[in-house]
Amino acid sequence: MNANLKKLQTALDSHIKDIRPIDLRASESAQKREDSLAKPVGSLGTLERLAVQMAGITGSVHNEIKNKHLLVFAADHGVVCEGVSSTPQSVTLIQAVNLTRKKTGASVIADHFDCRITVCDVGINAEVNNPDIINKKIAFGTKNIADGPAMTREQAIEAILCGTELARDAAKTADVIGVGEMGIGNTTAASAVLCVLSGKPVKCVTGRGGGLSNAALEHKKDIITRAVSVNNPDKSDPIDVLLKLGGFDIAAMCGAFIGCAAERTPVVIDGFPSVVSALLAYRICPAVREYLIPSHASTEAGYAVAMEILGLEPMLNLNMRLGEGSGCPLAFEILSAACAVINNMATFDEAGIDSGYIDELLKSTAGDKS
Amino acid sequence: MNANLKKLQTALDSHIKDIRPIDLRASESAQKREDSLAKPVGSLGTLERLAVQMAGITGSVHNEIKNKHLLVFAADHGVVCEGVSSTPQSVTLIQAVNLTRKKTGASVIADHFDCRITVCDVGINAEVNNPDIINKKIAFGTKNIADGPAMTREQAIEAILCGTELARDAAKTADVIGVGEMGIGNTTAASAVLCVLSGKPVKCVTGRGGGLSNAALEHKKDIITRAVSVNNPDKSDPIDVLLKLGGFDIAAMCGAFIGCAAERTPVVIDGFPSVVSALLAYRICPAVREYLIPSHASTEAGYAVAMEILGLEPMLNLNMRLGEGSGCPLAFEILSAACAVINNMATFDEAGIDSGYIDELLKSTAGDKS
Repeated sequence: MNANLKKLQTALDSHIKDIRPIDLRASESAQKREDSLAKPVGSLGTLERLAVQMAGITGSVHNEIKNKHLLVFAADHGVVCEGVSSTPQSVTLIQAVNLTRKKTGASVIADHFDCRITVCDVGINAEVNNPDIINKKIAFGTKNIADGPAMTREQAIEAILCGTELARDAAKTADVIGVGEMGIGNTTAASAVLCVLSGKPVKCVTGRGGGLSNAALEHKKDIITRAVSVNNPDKSDPIDVLLKLGGFDIAAMCGAFIGCAAERTPVVIDGFPSVVSALLAYRICPAVREYLIPSHASTEAGYAVAMEILGLEPMLNLNMRLGEGSGCPLAFEILSAACAVINNMATFDEAGIDSGYIDELLKSTAGDKS
Repeated sequence: MNANLKKLQTALDSHIKDIRPIDLRASESAQKREDSLAKPVGSLGTLERLAVQMAGITGSVHNEIKNKHLLVFAADHGVVCEGVSSTPQSVTLIQAVNLTRKKTGASVIADHFDCRITVCDVGINAEVNNPDIINKKIAFGTKNIADGPAMTREQAIEAILCGTELARDAAKTADVIGVGEMGIGNTTAASAVLCVLSGKPVKCVTGRGGGLSNAALEHKKDIITRAVSVNNPDKSDPIDVLLKLGGFDIAAMCGAFIGCAAERTPVVIDGFPSVVSALLAYRICPAVREYLIPSHASTEAGYAVAMEILGLEPMLNLNMRLGEGSGCPLAFEILSAACAVINNMATFDEAGIDSGYIDELLKSTAGDKS
């Protein structure tokens, strides 16, 4: 291992060492409070689960979601030269700029809900020179994964660290962070990574991206098959899978999930490239999982595969496939409602429901309303 | 038909006559605008569909959700004497009061999102005398549907009109309205109504309510089977089904859906009793359907059956089964995001994406991002 790689790996290890298990005492107290609230036990479903998870993450039963922050990592992908996307590469740059102008889908939604947005260039294939875009460029796009590795191991860890550091910095003021991407070609990279991590056939993890035709989808699958075969990554080494098949956006997102966990900040997954990055973070450090919050069910084929491995279920069913972190600000609102419920609902005692009723309710399988 | 019934029926007919088809010109313009926005065509899924529906409802492409109003109808059900709920009837009154104190699940969530809430007594089995609860009591609860009709035809139409009038009044200031209930025993009534309207077996439309045990669930199914058989309602007459098997809360909710449609105001469905009421409204006047917006997927067994008949798909997957309209304020936020997107996103031209890209994107099946 060369000196630079060693330095980078040490920096990453140090972040990972900061990730602690969640606070079980706090999450148990939160569960107790949920069960004492004047409603059939468990009847607020995911809103209860989210409040319990929040307690485990922060160590407090009562939380509030005031400061919301969406991190969007933008990068280009060498594999686009294989014709896996009908969109020209220049759109990565254009939309990265438009994200800062609050003109794209995700930035409009974020702005609507008073959610801060930070756009970070980790590998756009152009000179960016935009004061509103954080410049952490690793390279001008990845190499073509159909021919060889996307990047070096140094570059992979550098990109991870960029995401980790940005997330840790954002977590100083944010109550919740969302992780999204902008990168033409990144569903091809994400599918290739997931193919190896999941062990599933290419066809189960590959979708139409923004909307490929049937023929173009078949071609995309062929390219992914070739990329996996040419690179033959070590499945047991997530960073090897990432550097050979991934992208700078995927690496940085993976790092952002690690950074949020290190800061005990809940972190929301967006769509397909985002969930594959979360899966990479989970494979690098399984404790990350307790800090993850899903948002919407992406219609991209591999999304459900990655979610199943993570053991997570999306909260929103909106048939979305835009990326950019567009599902995160919506999930933030649900999370904030979950906090309001545990903070403000009356307990059975406060509700004036007589204790006979409470006894009866607690005796039944899961309470009863009607 | 007696004079009073005739008067009531005339009043209802007059509301129904006010329901017009949606404005297709406006919804087509909204669809065109969605397709011109800088994103793969259709990639914002339900957010696009909602904005198009809003345009059809209001006649304008650009809408905003500023004033949100949740209507909660509270009533008791005679069938609780059969032991179909482990919760005492008194909880209907207690929680109706707690709804006005912002202490129940739905009222906490509504308050969190600055959503107004109105609680209306249409049949609580107690003297209410609470200035914060609108008194439109039809009777002190329904009769036991296992022995005969829940109410008279006059009472059914009176309860519908109460909901319609309250909704039309609320629509004067609200941009969107949600419809929920509080009524111990009302999932039994809703299942009985749905059993007849859907033609499905009792077991497919009957669930655990707040959380019945296996044995209690079997007993609930037996009672519903008896109620349907004893009353033998005319399936082709939704009001006959409602008066024989329903409840005052269900009737008033049905009326609220009609009232919102008459006022061209989008109206959000909550959980199981709410969707059965929406189905009754749809059977009374099919044009109501275009004004309906679903919220969350209730875990109650019959919910999906009613949604399938209505051809609707829930947006939220939160494993909730509380009722009270608790899903509506969450759906309002998604609707408001849908309006923000169509109002504020850049078109391809504004986004500075070159026309070659646009041409290419429009040519492909459904656009493409990555």
